[in-house]
Formats: sequence, C-alpha cells, structure tokens
Amino acid sequence: MRYELYYWPGIQGRGEFVRLALEEAGAYYVDVERGAKGSTTMSALLDGSSLDRPPYAPPILKAGNLVIAQSANILQYLGPRHGLAPANEAGQLWTHQIQLTVTDFVKEIHDTHHPISGSLYYEEQKAEAKRFAATFVAERAPKYLGWFERVLAQNPSGDKHLSGAHLTYADLSVFQIVAGLDYAFPKTMKKLAKKLPRVRALYARVAARPRIKAYLASDRRLPFNQHGIFRHYPELDG
Amino acid sequence: MRYELYYWPGIQGRGEFVRLALEEAGAYYVDVERGAKGSTTMSALLDGSSLDRPPYAPPILKAGNLVIAQSANILQYLGPRHGLAPANEAGQLWTHQIQLTVTDFVKEIHDTHHPISGSLYYEEQKAEAKRFAATFVAERAPKYLGWFERVLAQNPSGDKHLSGAHLTYADLSVFQIVAGLDYAFPKTMKKLAKKLPRVRALYARVAARPRIKAYLASDRRLPFNQHGIFRHYPELDG
Repeated sequence: MRYELYYWPGIQGRGEFVRLALEEAGAYYVDVERGAKGSTTMSALLDGSSLDRPPYAPPILKAGNLVIAQSANILQYLGPRHGLAPANEAGQLWTHQIQLTVTDFVKEIHDTHHPISGSLYYEEQKAEAKRFAATFVAERAPKYLGWFERVLAQNPSGDKHLSGAHLTYADLSVFQIVAGLDYAFPKTMKKLAKKLPRVRALYARVAARPRIKAYLASDRRLPFNQHGIFRHYPELDG
Repeated sequence: MRYELYYWPGIQGRGEFVRLALEEAGAYYVDVERGAKGSTTMSALLDGSSLDRPPYAPPILKAGNLVIAQSANILQYLGPRHGLAPANEAGQLWTHQIQLTVTDFVKEIHDTHHPISGSLYYEEQKAEAKRFAATFVAERAPKYLGWFERVLAQNPSGDKHLSGAHLTYADLSVFQIVAGLDYAFPKTMKKLAKKLPRVRALYARVAARPRIKAYLASDRRLPFNQHGIFRHYPELDG
C-alpha cells in the first residue's frame, strides 16, 4: 500500500504522530506537502467540496480510496495493519484510549502558547499564556505524564510498553510528547524526570529503535521550531 | 449486556454523549454515580491502582470485563453493537472521525468559560474568557457548525445523517452540541441558524425520536446548568 500523508510542511505538528508510525512500520508513504507529488493537494482536500467525507483539518492520510483525518483515527487504522497495535479488540480499544489522552494533552501543550486564539500571535496573548502555563507546569503536565508512568507500571505484560507486550503507536506518541516537552519545557522536564523513570526509559528505547533512529537523523525529521505545537519560551517554563 | 456508566453525577458533561447512545439503543445501563449501586465506584476506577488499564478521566463504561474511557472510544465500542454505526470499516472510521471533531469542539466550548485553568473559577478568568469567547463566537463555532452542515450536505446517502444512510452516534452527538449551544450561546445560535438548515433539521429529528424524546422528558436528563460544559454567561454570547 502506498500512503499519502498531508500536513503543513514547515512543522512536525500533529502530523508527526502519524509520521513516526509510518517510519517505524517501514511503510511506503509520500509526504505530499513537503514537495513530493501526490495525486492531489492538501488545499483541495481541505476545500473538500468534491469529497463525500471532507476532513475538518490535517493530518490527512490517503490509503487507497480512503481519506482519513484525525491523527488518533489514522493511527487506529494503521496500527493493526503494521503490527503497531494489539491483535485483539480489548487491546486495540485500550491503545486508542491512551492515544486519545495523548490528543487531549497535545491540545493543552499547544494552548500553553495560544490559550486565547489560534488567530492571534503569541505576543498578543503572552499575559494569558503565562497564566495558563503556570497551571500547566504545576498541575497538568505532571498529571498527564504521571498517568503514562502509571500505565507503564501497571501493564501486566511489563513496564516496557504502554499497551500489551509489544511496541504500539501509543509508545511512539509518548516518545514524541517527551521529545517535544524536553524542547519546550526543559526545566520542568528535568524536575519531573525522577518521578518518570519508566516514561524516560520508554523514550530512550524508542529513540534507539533502528528505524526511528534513522528517521530522527534524516532530513525528514524537521527540528522543533517556534511555529509548531512544542515551542520553547523560557518565560513559560516554570 | 448490562452496562455501568461512571460520570460526575451533577452535570450532563461528556457523559451525556454516551448516555444519548445508550438511551437511543434502549440499552440496559446503570448510571452508577447517580445513586444506583454498581459493583464499584468512580473514585475506585479513577484511583485505578488495582487496574491493568487505569482510566485517566470519566466518562468510563464498564462492559463485562472491559473498562473503557474517553467518550469517543466508548461510542466507537457501542456503535456497531447497537446499530449506531455503519457495518463497514470505512463507515466506522468516518463516523469516528466526525466524533473526534465533536470532541475537539467540545473542548473549545468548555474553554469559553475556562480558558486558563480548570482549577480556577470562572470569575477568576473572566477577562480571558471574554477574549476567548470573542473568537469562539466569530470564528470557531461557525467553522465547526459549518463543517457539520457541509458533511450533511455532501453525504452521498442523503442529508438526513452525518454518516451513511442511518442514524449514528455522531448524529446524537451533534444533536447534543446544538442543544448545549442553544442554551449557552442563544444569540449566536440564532444568528447562525440560517446557515445551518441541515444541522437544525438533524437536531429536530433526533429530538423527536421516540426513545430520545422520552429520555429528554425524563428525570434522567439533567437540565443544563452553570457547572457543566455548556454554560450561559450572556457576556460571552457576542
């Protein structure tokens, strides 16, 4: 299967959660908006007037006749096809449940720098961002990350994976969360590290996987920057 | 199957999306925290220290040995079992995609009155709420609702449903969104009504379904109030 991934070309963003799964799977995919030629363009998909199932926003995956949006939904589709989700329904529901909690966390991470509106610059909502980030650093990030730690600790198949005995797309996504937070909130993450031994170990293990390691070293992996979800503003970092 | 639903007892909240599906299905369920006796309590599930799959937050559905959280995930589980989702995978993915966009919208609706922190009262973030709500009323609500309108208009099986030719949990959820916004943002919804003929018609059709109508008239349907997701603060309504 040849996949086409559509996402904003200049950032990792929510597309990165899909990209990591495609890379780990060794899947054949075209990152259309980054210059390779797809059969269509993202603006045509987002205009969507000719589609039976118009997506609301990217990332969007074309897989044969399917046009799938919402990163968690795309991952749920890809997971069982590429050995990145358990084979049974209960395991798939649980992996997806973790992923939906990742989605919630990602939205809050985004809102640390854009609590008021995506239509305004950070500088136009800096005062509100500082107030939002104070709660984020003190309460929200520790709560979400602490939950991932607990999920690992209580996994009956062992604390190396979030769901079941093998790597899933949820593990890849939590890797990405940690990578992004290390960039955006280094002080906070350093303080929290002691309480997150399993999360930190998961991060290191995923980073060392051959395909992920090769991907991270390639120019397909964009660096974090001040336009994406994870932004480093020292004034927000506790 | 006897289901147990766990959710905060005093509000509709995110539990209501699950409740509407259970009601439309005529399913046998116990709303545990509202006083009926379940086999456990929500605080035990949220403490979660004895669970292999501890939920992060309610709503939580117990179904046999499964403990499922995240409303969209619960609906995805219930849908095909109760005729509230298409039978084929493509249709199920699309229905879930719509539901995940509902989830995103619900979060933004919540943030109109709590843009800074769920740990603070509305009155403590009123200035920020006004600023957030201005964009919500002018841009976000029209964009999300307009997308539902378009999804209905472009559905090849007709504009009576969001996904396929039959009622799905996504239709029930968009009904709930409209009901809630009519309560919270009556001026804005009145202004938008002309542009949303299909969404308004869907709302009316769902409200008139026998089981939903009976549910809405029962004391199982809590009224909207100032503690839930949908709150009526006239100063936020454009």
